[in-house]
Amino acid sequence: MSYPEKFQGIAVLDHKDWKNVKKTEYSPKKFGDHDIDIKIEACGVCGSDVHCASGNWGDTPKPLVVGHEIIGTIVKMGPKCNSGYKIGDRVGMGAQAMSCLECDRCINDNEPYCAKVVCTYANPYEDGYSSRGGYANYVRVHEHFAVPIPESIPSHLAAPLMCGGLTVFSPLKRNGCGPGKKVGIIGIGGIGHMGIILAKAMGAEVYAISRTSKKRDDAMKLGADHFIAIKEEPDWHKEYFDKLDLVVICAGSLTDIDFNTLPNILTVGGRIVSIAIPEQHEVLKMKPFGLVGVSISNSFLGSMTELKQLLKLAAEKEVKLWVETVPIGEKGVKEVFTRMEKGDVRYRFALTDFDKEFS
Amino acid sequence: MSYPEKFQGIAVLDHKDWKNVKKTEYSPKKFGDHDIDIKIEACGVCGSDVHCASGNWGDTPKPLVVGHEIIGTIVKMGPKCNSGYKIGDRVGMGAQAMSCLECDRCINDNEPYCAKVVCTYANPYEDGYSSRGGYANYVRVHEHFAVPIPESIPSHLAAPLMCGGLTVFSPLKRNGCGPGKKVGIIGIGGIGHMGIILAKAMGAEVYAISRTSKKRDDAMKLGADHFIAIKEEPDWHKEYFDKLDLVVICAGSLTDIDFNTLPNILTVGGRIVSIAIPEQHEVLKMKPFGLVGVSISNSFLGSMTELKQLLKLAAEKEVKLWVETVPIGEKGVKEVFTRMEKGDVRYRFALTDFDKEFS
Repeated sequence: MSYPEKFQGIAVLDHKDWKNVKKTEYSPKKFGDHDIDIKIEACGVCGSDVHCASGNWGDTPKPLVVGHEIIGTIVKMGPKCNSGYKIGDRVGMGAQAMSCLECDRCINDNEPYCAKVVCTYANPYEDGYSSRGGYANYVRVHEHFAVPIPESIPSHLAAPLMCGGLTVFSPLKRNGCGPGKKVGIIGIGGIGHMGIILAKAMGAEVYAISRTSKKRDDAMKLGADHFIAIKEEPDWHKEYFDKLDLVVICAGSLTDIDFNTLPNILTVGGRIVSIAIPEQHEVLKMKPFGLVGVSISNSFLGSMTELKQLLKLAAEKEVKLWVETVPIGEKGVKEVFTRMEKGDVRYRFALTDFDKEFS
Repeated sequence: MSYPEKFQGIAVLDHKDWKNVKKTEYSPKKFGDHDIDIKIEACGVCGSDVHCASGNWGDTPKPLVVGHEIIGTIVKMGPKCNSGYKIGDRVGMGAQAMSCLECDRCINDNEPYCAKVVCTYANPYEDGYSSRGGYANYVRVHEHFAVPIPESIPSHLAAPLMCGGLTVFSPLKRNGCGPGKKVGIIGIGGIGHMGIILAKAMGAEVYAISRTSKKRDDAMKLGADHFIAIKEEPDWHKEYFDKLDLVVICAGSLTDIDFNTLPNILTVGGRIVSIAIPEQHEVLKMKPFGLVGVSISNSFLGSMTELKQLLKLAAEKEVKLWVETVPIGEKGVKEVFTRMEKGDVRYRFALTDFDKEFS
């Protein structure tokens, strides 16, 4: 069988052999009145894909189809769709596939914090169906969780904004990033590189913060105004004392970060926001007095309103992410998984050529 | 010798025998051009006094004269005083005696966060003199760290506002406490009781949060709208899910607080602020993901501008703290230390009758 009865994806069938993905057919979720089907053109590769595929975050139903930075065109719409879309529109979806859409959090632009959040893959809908993502020919999703993509942004550059971009944009936006503000980005990886670009596009003075100076040149090219190599500058917390208004931690793990030192570089009322989803065993340890005058919090994804704001900003400021494209397929996915595991990407992969793989 | 060469205080001479205070003479700090001498009328008893007197916070120079909730009248002014005071004015001073007065933090109403902060007692000035506090006949301080006391507030009720009141008012003020906001106060002790009264006076809906329901009646009389007994209501974090905008932790220790549960009762963007100065060995442990959408920070004292705002609020709203007065003297100080150690106070002591002790 083929679409619309069955979707095809490049799937993980066994966490123990997670890199040897297989092209696999599976049933999509039941088509809802507000659902749309998106024929996929590009899908970004997020660190979460690797965590989930490898079993780092626990076991998941199979076939597991990851991918939550999805761009494509609408090929089918439910009878009650009322978001103004039409067949053929190019849209994107990110890491969130559903929420209750009724609670205070949902109606106040905080969908990711809804108690009934459903993530784009490996997460159960109310009827028990385990969501499946964008390493596939189609994805089915409630129209609320799709956004129109501005014409000027190519699909492979729009894709990484859907999860990674939004995840760093949301805390920047909510914590006052803009002209006159000094903003630090810790961890220059897939999300961190977007953090530098976006904080700069929002008008802030940007401090790229990394362990070593290995990525200094890249960071400056990405738009950073300053670069701090923590392991190479023992007095960094004195030199930058009382300087930054906001620091967003984009590192994958928090255990390397000294939370008794970091607050020193923030102003009074300054904020540290982590967007990391650390491994389950990780525990944050800090001396309470280290946080004097400075707050720390954890941010999770971003709202659909923020995703629209982000795309508007990206189009207006002609934001250019550093994206390496790889054709989708068993070979391509194995390649990106292998290189992601080694951190061998500058700075984000997008899977492309869906037409060729799923013709 | 007597004033102005020597001050007299009820002093700790040995941490090992800290409750047996002795009336002792000592030299005040060198009189500076901007200094004023205050003849003391009342001094509140803060938890810090007990921590410092008992040696909990380490060894200190002797004689140790604690007390940093000081009210009295000006009896002497330095030649360069220009704050508009005159001899005989009734003023108060809190836990901070000095800062550089020049850095960004000082000139932006963040004196407590200045790198050169000098606390009111047991803390060295630049010349090495160890500051001495308000369990004494006089205190000498830079005019910047004194504030005028509104006529309508009696000295024994103004005193506890100087440190404890300001310490809880500052995070309330800085984090949006006011009409339409739901604010939790954790820990119904000396500072917590002021937290309830002040949050209510600022117009918030107040949730008093305690381990047991022992203090429920008191909390409601103090002005709380709701009371949560954490140990007696196992589902408290579900019942109050997504309710509060701000929680100020006024408990003396943080180890009893489950930071993986507490964030549940806060809205997205909600804030947890601790004003505790925990013992040095205390470390905060939390799963980073527990702080999703919610921030935590530590607040320290408050600015002089905030202290003036607090006194204005207290006068306008006719704020009435629950204060038990005890005459100053060796006997009185021993009594308050002994009862503070047992938590036997509802809810703040103020030492009075300075005229009789130091005639």
